[in-house]
Amino acid sequence: KHILTLPGDGVGPEIMTGAKSVLEKIADDFNHEFTFEDGLIGGAAYDASGTPLDDGTLSRAKNADAILLGAVGGPKWDTVEKTLRPEQGLLKIRKELGLFANLRPIKVFDRLIPASPLKETIVGGTDILFVRELTGGLYFGKPSERRDGGNSVVDTLAYTKEEIERIVEYGFQAAKLRGNKLTSVDKANVLESSRMWREIVDEKSAAYPEVEVEHALVDSTAMKLITNPNDFDVVVTENLFGDILSDEASVITGSIGLLPSASLNSSGFGLYEPVHGSAPDIAGKGIVNPLAMILSAAMMLKYSFHLSEEAEAIEAAVDSALKDGIHTSDLDFEGGRTVSTEEMIGTVISYIK
Amino acid sequence: KHILTLPGDGVGPEIMTGAKSVLEKIADDFNHEFTFEDGLIGGAAYDASGTPLDDGTLSRAKNADAILLGAVGGPKWDTVEKTLRPEQGLLKIRKELGLFANLRPIKVFDRLIPASPLKETIVGGTDILFVRELTGGLYFGKPSERRDGGNSVVDTLAYTKEEIERIVEYGFQAAKLRGNKLTSVDKANVLESSRMWREIVDEKSAAYPEVEVEHALVDSTAMKLITNPNDFDVVVTENLFGDILSDEASVITGSIGLLPSASLNSSGFGLYEPVHGSAPDIAGKGIVNPLAMILSAAMMLKYSFHLSEEAEAIEAAVDSALKDGIHTSDLDFEGGRTVSTEEMIGTVISYIK
Ligand SMILES: CC(C)[C@H](C(=O)O)[C@@H](O)C(=O)O
Ligand SMILES: CC(C)[C@H](C(=O)O)[C@@H](O)C(=O)O
Repeated sequence: KHILTLPGDGVGPEIMTGAKSVLEKIADDFNHEFTFEDGLIGGAAYDASGTPLDDGTLSRAKNADAILLGAVGGPKWDTVEKTLRPEQGLLKIRKELGLFANLRPIKVFDRLIPASPLKETIVGGTDILFVRELTGGLYFGKPSERRDGGNSVVDTLAYTKEEIERIVEYGFQAAKLRGNKLTSVDKANVLESSRMWREIVDEKSAAYPEVEVEHALVDSTAMKLITNPNDFDVVVTENLFGDILSDEASVITGSIGLLPSASLNSSGFGLYEPVHGSAPDIAGKGIVNPLAMILSAAMMLKYSFHLSEEAEAIEAAVDSALKDGIHTSDLDFEGGRTVSTEEMIGTVISYIK
Repeated sequence: KHILTLPGDGVGPEIMTGAKSVLEKIADDFNHEFTFEDGLIGGAAYDASGTPLDDGTLSRAKNADAILLGAVGGPKWDTVEKTLRPEQGLLKIRKELGLFANLRPIKVFDRLIPASPLKETIVGGTDILFVRELTGGLYFGKPSERRDGGNSVVDTLAYTKEEIERIVEYGFQAAKLRGNKLTSVDKANVLESSRMWREIVDEKSAAYPEVEVEHALVDSTAMKLITNPNDFDVVVTENLFGDILSDEASVITGSIGLLPSASLNSSGFGLYEPVHGSAPDIAGKGIVNPLAMILSAAMMLKYSFHLSEEAEAIEAAVDSALKDGIHTSDLDFEGGRTVSTEEMIGTVISYIK
């Protein structure tokens, strides 16, 4: 399997090293061959070639079996012209590769419950899978422009029926593999796109009688994620709603340094990246938490390569390391031991069975 | 002063009774005259006349000195054609009266800190004023329609420069009267409207050198409201972002039953309503918390009638009642006493000095 690694900016390179070492260990133990090719994205790509994602990288991405991405962005590129900013590289690769299904599992690790901003009784047991639409909606709709000589502005929330159908379908499939509950989030009391979304969910639900479907408004969901996070199983929603709600949900776990994500196209090809950003303030210090990137690599094994046993070996190793109280400095652990990025990576590798 | 009262649906009528009694007490004590006129909105209006807001009510609204609104909506009207649903009455009155500035104070009452889903150390001291744009953005932009024979759909996030300027201006003014800190929330790494919003904030900030301005992304803000709610003073943002974020922030207080709101136009004319909804499940039982509606009446005295002393008399009475542990059944109070809606109203009135 050939993997394109795009470390990106900030802490990206440090965490990517971790993911690669862990994958090499898996290759050895389970008799696989993974080959890696490094590419540039984001600010790093801009610095090298004046664009946050060049065509060469894009075509290498298309030819790879999967992509691992670190993180993009940082204050260094704040003054760059907007179409060339680091984030544009990320938006472009998602769009060009048709990575419409963004999966963001939000799981509370028992040892981290005390670090959650929420009360332990509320957050304990939370286990949500966000299925966020990633290549449509308000992020990509046209027109998105100034008008009347700069006196007005529009952005567009646009969807085709097919775009909504495939992500909703994905939500139902995911719910079937988990707790059989699907919460579809919209703003149907205001938006026409949400009313169409709701209709499509209702249509599709006939084919999934075992899945309990709930329609919820985006504002109510923002409340319920705080008061009753345990009520959610799979949440399917529009691009921007998913951005806001999955980020909100991520902090209730007590560490976004642990949360992976997958962005998939219709043939299961995917890009895997941590939910946290490039954290330029701690970049290069050897202290970043590599676990979200390592768990993203595990998602890659599972979703793109169908190597579930191998993915679980990584997840179990991360779990054991945390249970033994070993953690990087971003985590607050009672009776734990703070280690460097390198030691954390080493620990996970040594725990892989 | 002539006040149009629109009780609306569900618990609306019960809480409106409370606001009126409290205002009558204020009129007596401070020598004012308030006259009240009742009107219909939402499902109640639909049942009476087939529309959630009729022209007669709208013109009475225009002629009143201020409007008090209870709440709209409920499952009873779920099957009504979408343009006639209860919420449409609310959207219409906001738009027709130009109530572009939605103020939502989020304040944690000390006695309620234990009821917050957040840890006490995190939530204690939180005091945020949301300034949400209310008559533009994604809620009202055209086109908002199905296309290609139902095969696609669009909604539009549209703003004129003036619309953004006046709400941003409002944000700065509010920050000046409070802690001199303004957080402007957008999604400038993706949306053109957000980039224009950010430019306008930067332009305006020159006129407010004493106000510290911070630009934040809507996704990061959704996280920070949970991890560091104390960092916010005034938050100014787009209609839908404000809807989501202010609702998210409202639950961290431990009771949305206490939160009022004001929706103002450029001449200070306003509509005042609680943040909570119509709660059809508890309507008519005499148990709803009337405090959010009563505090909305206090906001009316302050913002529309410039009767600050009178507004503070109401706020102080509510504060004292809570300090003495008197509360309705929605609140969870150590050593408190649960009372009915009517008793709660009576308590507040008896505490007004
Ligand atoms: C960097 C940004 C454009 C991106 C998004 O909003 O999609 C990020 O917040 C994410 O959620 O992956
Ligand atoms: C009822 C609904 C249309 C309304 C809105 O979204 O504005 C409500 O949620 C609010 O925040 O006042």
